[in-house]
Amino acid sequence: MATVSNTRTVRIEWGDCDPAGIIFYPRYFEIFDASTAALFERALGITKAEMFKTLEFSGWPLARTQARFLKPTRFGDDVTVETTVNFGRSSFEIVHRLSLKGELCAECSEKRVWTVRDAQGHLKSHPVPEEVRAKFGA
Amino acid sequence: MATVSNTRTVRIEWGDCDPAGIIFYPRYFEIFDASTAALFERALGITKAEMFKTLEFSGWPLARTQARFLKPTRFGDDVTVETTVNFGRSSFEIVHRLSLKGELCAECSEKRVWTVRDAQGHLKSHPVPEEVRAKFGA
Amino acid sequence: MATVSNTRTVRIEWGDCDPAGIIFYPRYFEIFDASTAALFERALGITKAEMFKTLEFSGWPLARTQARFLKPTRFGDDVTVETTVNFGRSSFEIVHRLSLKGELCAECSEKRVWTVRDAQGHLKSHPVPEEVRAKFGA
Amino acid sequence: MATVSNTRTVRIEWGDCDPAGIIFYPRYFEIFDASTAALFERALGITKAEMFKTLEFSGWPLARTQARFLKPTRFGDDVTVETTVNFGRSSFEIVHRLSLKGELCAECSEKRVWTVRDAQGHLKSHPVPEEVRAKFGA
Repeated sequence: MATVSNTRTVRIEWGDCDPAGIIFYPRYFEIFDASTAALFERALGITKAEMFKTLEFSGWPLARTQARFLKPTRFGDDVTVETTVNFGRSSFEIVHRLSLKGELCAECSEKRVWTVRDAQGHLKSHPVPEEVRAKFGA
Repeated sequence: MATVSNTRTVRIEWGDCDPAGIIFYPRYFEIFDASTAALFERALGITKAEMFKTLEFSGWPLARTQARFLKPTRFGDDVTVETTVNFGRSSFEIVHRLSLKGELCAECSEKRVWTVRDAQGHLKSHPVPEEVRAKFGA
Repeated sequence: MATVSNTRTVRIEWGDCDPAGIIFYPRYFEIFDASTAALFERALGITKAEMFKTLEFSGWPLARTQARFLKPTRFGDDVTVETTVNFGRSSFEIVHRLSLKGELCAECSEKRVWTVRDAQGHLKSHPVPEEVRAKFGA
Repeated sequence: MATVSNTRTVRIEWGDCDPAGIIFYPRYFEIFDASTAALFERALGITKAEMFKTLEFSGWPLARTQARFLKPTRFGDDVTVETTVNFGRSSFEIVHRLSLKGELCAECSEKRVWTVRDAQGHLKSHPVPEEVRAKFGA
């Protein structure tokens, strides 16, 4: 089974919203980025900061993303973000579904690349370590 | 008793941090702004969004702030923010103390003005409503 | 001719970058949102703030977006963003191409909806005004 | 003469503003941080990124800041930020004055520490290099 999910609740804050009174959409991508980290933290039992120290890992830069925005959210809303992953060899696909009171408000998919640093310190793609896959049951 | 406090935990995220690997300090002010809202939500039992609907209230713009940064924080840190308030007539002073594992990392004081909109829709200062003071025991 | 473009230069700042030393990708969407406003400002000769006052216009919420990230950018980079538009009836498609020294680093497309407020103050879609289309030569 | 100044113009963007329609104040600190970098870039003739490569320099973390907010600014405003510096031995004081059409809207002072990395990679304070002071005429 190559998919595992995590669900968390996020408060939309005043400072996330724009003069129209609704969330300024780049804030969604901040929420999604933190949700990706939260998924790995749940599966691996360590934070992203600890991943840098204990795994062959130097980050998961985004290769592409796409998102649909169905209903706006507003400050004071407590939204639910459900995040799932599917692993490729040295990349993975993430899907985030952001809901308010059971209604889907935004949906986002990401393709991210697992990276390590080469001898010159440059990021290069690298197979997702087996120990990571194993924790996800992949 | 004119002071009430609220304490909350905030995760410092990857996207809050800069190339030095530590929090980019404007993110602290985002955390502090949300902590001010959280204090009122705790005392009043309603969100800031609901305050606009049920109180004589159109926001609490900042008049001045000052902050000291004692120790940096990093992504993956779960920091504690303790927020206290002291009311003046139509303004209030907020203090935020942000700690990691019991050590103070940043401290901030704010002076904010309670506002309503005048007939032209412009923000003007207004006495903090009695019902608000009462909920704080002020 | 239904397409018009605008090009602007943006400095990637220290605070836009993450602990990997490269831009934190939600910042790209802030740049793209401002680039959409800059395109309309160039074509119409008025800022977005003035559009609210002089046009049937209450904002252009995003319906969907997709982006590819080809090469990272870093603080101190002066990137070029070329923005183009194609109008539908009450929506429009925007494409942003972000380059550094002539090399494409990121590409993004957006579908946005032209809105006005109904009698209850809610946003609803509305045909792009003729005077706006005319300024774009559409 | 120990003070040098730089002035730049910054557009307040839609995404910098909150549901009250005015700038969300943490965005001012992003503007001020970039203004500090712009001052050094003007005096030294190199970007902050290049400073890391060519100087004894690992950043200028903030020790404390204070700010007053006199008049709000709004999206579409082109504000002027005048930034000045006074050097101490291994720290410096920065003042930013942000104005709109000649009227002061916000004022901020910062104390920052010049740092280098020690053998363990930790940031420690370090005297501001003579070649830096010389460029400022200090």
